Amino acid sequence: MDNRPIGVFDSGMGGLTALRQLVRLVPNENIVYFGDTGRVPYGARSSDTIVKYARQDMSFLMQFDPKAILIACGTVSTTALPILMREYDLPVYGVVEPAVAAALKATRNKRIGIIGTKATVRSGSYAEMIRYLNREIEVFSKACPLFVPLVEDGRVHPGDPVLSCLIDEYLSEMVRAEVDTVILGCTHYPLLTDAIGAYLGDGVRLIDTGLESSLALREHLFKSELLSDREGSGTVSYYVSDSAADFKALASVFLGSEIVQDVRRVDIDKY
Amino acid sequence: MDNRPIGVFDSGMGGLTALRQLVRLVPNENIVYFGDTGRVPYGARSSDTIVKYARQDMSFLMQFDPKAILIACGTVSTTALPILMREYDLPVYGVVEPAVAAALKATRNKRIGIIGTKATVRSGSYAEMIRYLNREIEVFSKACPLFVPLVEDGRVHPGDPVLSCLIDEYLSEMVRAEVDTVILGCTHYPLLTDAIGAYLGDGVRLIDTGLESSLALREHLFKSELLSDREGSGTVSYYVSDSAADFKALASVFLGSEIVQDVRRVDIDKY
Repeated sequence: MDNRPIGVFDSGMGGLTALRQLVRLVPNENIVYFGDTGRVPYGARSSDTIVKYARQDMSFLMQFDPKAILIACGTVSTTALPILMREYDLPVYGVVEPAVAAALKATRNKRIGIIGTKATVRSGSYAEMIRYLNREIEVFSKACPLFVPLVEDGRVHPGDPVLSCLIDEYLSEMVRAEVDTVILGCTHYPLLTDAIGAYLGDGVRLIDTGLESSLALREHLFKSELLSDREGSGTVSYYVSDSAADFKALASVFLGSEIVQDVRRVDIDKY
Repeated sequence: MDNRPIGVFDSGMGGLTALRQLVRLVPNENIVYFGDTGRVPYGARSSDTIVKYARQDMSFLMQFDPKAILIACGTVSTTALPILMREYDLPVYGVVEPAVAAALKATRNKRIGIIGTKATVRSGSYAEMIRYLNREIEVFSKACPLFVPLVEDGRVHPGDPVLSCLIDEYLSEMVRAEVDTVILGCTHYPLLTDAIGAYLGDGVRLIDTGLESSLALREHLFKSELLSDREGSGTVSYYVSDSAADFKALASVFLGSEIVQDVRRVDIDKY
């Protein structure tokens, strides 16, 4: 039993899709969320800048003495997770391993697609982990660099002409490759589930990395006897690196409900 | 006569379109360029974050003892310029005033369009300055939030389906408003000149803010007797806040030629 909070961070708003799942799965945990909205997006930046930013994000969250960290960001999970795991002496969960496990369970025809930011695809993390666990799987990766700007601009509806055009451009090779499972390798992408699902059809299973990593974290906390014994709901505290008001105004799109708590602003470059 | 360098900065790569014009206009000046590639884009951030970043960018350039600064960024020019002018005791040029002067000269029917980032349109700077100078002008402003991600992704060709779709969405009201002059209020947009020009037609004059502000800066330096008396070409030094190699690889799209000099990396959050 451990009543310390869980720390969650993301490059900006995308991680809220994972937070939403985590709150649903472990409602009586205290959670501290940091979104680096002043420096979003991470996905087209170089590896060393992503590592530098991720270290600052971790360093900020460490102040709250967390019992575990969930990196609710595909780009950081694929580019910086091994480094952060070496540097910090607490459980640090990323989105790669849980999503890969779910994809391996889901696929019937052993053809798995992975979509993510440029940095995520460049890292090769998903493809390597899949091949490490099962050499028979064929993997098809595709960087979708404009999905994050589109989602951050609120263009998530299946009928949006720009979104439709990009989905066709990015995903037509997944259709040709006849994948039956696609990992949504960026925590922004669950907002595109309807649009991507409609394009790929019912036969293709979409893996939500935020859901899978939240399930894995809950299991870890349970097995390690680190779940809280708090009665009633835990609290969620929000911190961001750009305007708190802007974050609050947009968050409901990602979170599915309004943020009623205060959102606090942080000078992340001081960490 | 003053042989000190001119400082130029932008949120990332866009300012290179202005730098290109400046180098052409004052070839024997030394120039120091800083591109904040580690925190690009600025256009959807809050005003106070833009001001904070612009202060750090200025503070970095002040080390080189510049004789003048060109803010080659529409977002900073519209959101932070008056603050920076108050805080620094040297000529600081932005893109707004020169572009407005050019637009007022160009328009025949007194209907001017302005396109830019969300922050630029929110600031109202262009519209206010136009109305201040000439109350008879009708101004039509439109934020085009996805143009910067598109340009940074290299999608600038007139036939690009996503670009065409966005141009139609963002600019159809400019056609309906029958503007005869459009200010490209972001230094990324000159790369879209062909595509936007083809859509709006020959009757609409496009104002390149980088060109106009470079012309204005040259005139200021000439009148103040601050031009260099150097014989032969000046040097251009490049500094960025993310990978120097990535910047070098992409710069030619904006600059029209390869960067042969070294590009140096800076920890901008230390300034």
